[in-house]
Amino acid sequence: MSGFQAPSLAALIDRFNRLPGIGKKSAQRLAYYVLSMSDEDARAFADAIIDAHSRIHRCAKCCNLTDEELCPICRSSKRDQTTVCVVEDPKDVAALEKTQEYSAVYHVLHGVISPLNGVGPDQLTIKELVKRVNEDGVKEVIMATNATAEGETTAVYISRLLKPLGVKVTRLAYGIPVGADLEYADEVTLVRALEGRREI
Amino acid sequence: MSGFQAPSLAALIDRFNRLPGIGKKSAQRLAYYVLSMSDEDARAFADAIIDAHSRIHRCAKCCNLTDEELCPICRSSKRDQTTVCVVEDPKDVAALEKTQEYSAVYHVLHGVISPLNGVGPDQLTIKELVKRVNEDGVKEVIMATNATAEGETTAVYISRLLKPLGVKVTRLAYGIPVGADLEYADEVTLVRALEGRREI
Repeated sequence: MSGFQAPSLAALIDRFNRLPGIGKKSAQRLAYYVLSMSDEDARAFADAIIDAHSRIHRCAKCCNLTDEELCPICRSSKRDQTTVCVVEDPKDVAALEKTQEYSAVYHVLHGVISPLNGVGPDQLTIKELVKRVNEDGVKEVIMATNATAEGETTAVYISRLLKPLGVKVTRLAYGIPVGADLEYADEVTLVRALEGRREI
Repeated sequence: MSGFQAPSLAALIDRFNRLPGIGKKSAQRLAYYVLSMSDEDARAFADAIIDAHSRIHRCAKCCNLTDEELCPICRSSKRDQTTVCVVEDPKDVAALEKTQEYSAVYHVLHGVISPLNGVGPDQLTIKELVKRVNEDGVKEVIMATNATAEGETTAVYISRLLKPLGVKVTRLAYGIPVGADLEYADEVTLVRALEGRREI
């Protein structure tokens, strides 16, 4: 099928096809769209890739992605620097920031402990977290890893490391998602919601 | 939400978000993926965009996309140059080539007549098609525009232009898609399938 396709077009389709969640059909559609762009837009797209890739690195403190030494959140004087919310991924920071209710800082692990995928504690930024707790007067660490088996394991592993250092370690609450029907909640979630019940 | 995000990262997310079918969440996912690429891969991705965009243009004969004067299909001596299959889009050429059953040449219109979207015959490559029929000894033109109202209108419009030139104009057959259940076929398709019935 690719015999009649120009090599540079086939190469672009292939590059799109390597992106996560982009199949052959989508890759083709995106490549044709790039061809239909103005010269400026195509140039700007390519530049944005190079630019972001070369500038963005991990924040020296929280390991979130930034283009400066410290990310805006770690630099901010309005943020409570003594409470640290530990998340798996930069996307989780974005999700929590969207709530506009969290005014302390983060720590991004860049993954979870997952022996099946060959990810051990050393591949995550746990060492950096322990250092922060030791040196920066952190009072509370909120474990906000995903509510999956691996997220849970990672939270337990880190809390065992941190508790001897005298820091308070908490976990996000489990329960019924707001707006959800009780009859569709799974048993484990219902048990956790019962356990975590509060007086009203 | 973007206040804490590095400008170069926000810019890359925005560029992905402009692509068709890529929403905010997907754009974010793709941008983070780019950041996780090796230097080489990021550079190769950016180069592929510039490369394809600058090299690819329309074939001088069939208007399909190519990086040479004539596309490989128009250049090929194995292809019957007297039968021309008229399609809306380069993607349709890819679909027909995949069948490996069509051994003649194509003509890519780059759209359909669509007054609602402000597309008239002049924006398509109809002039180029008429020129080919006049000058290149074309014997048959197969209209393979989509089976939509606009595709149909375009096919009828072009066939009226070409028939006075003494060329045979045909249309792809309508009918039940192979493997489909009769009960799910719409009425129009069923009527067309009945009209086009053949002796077995």
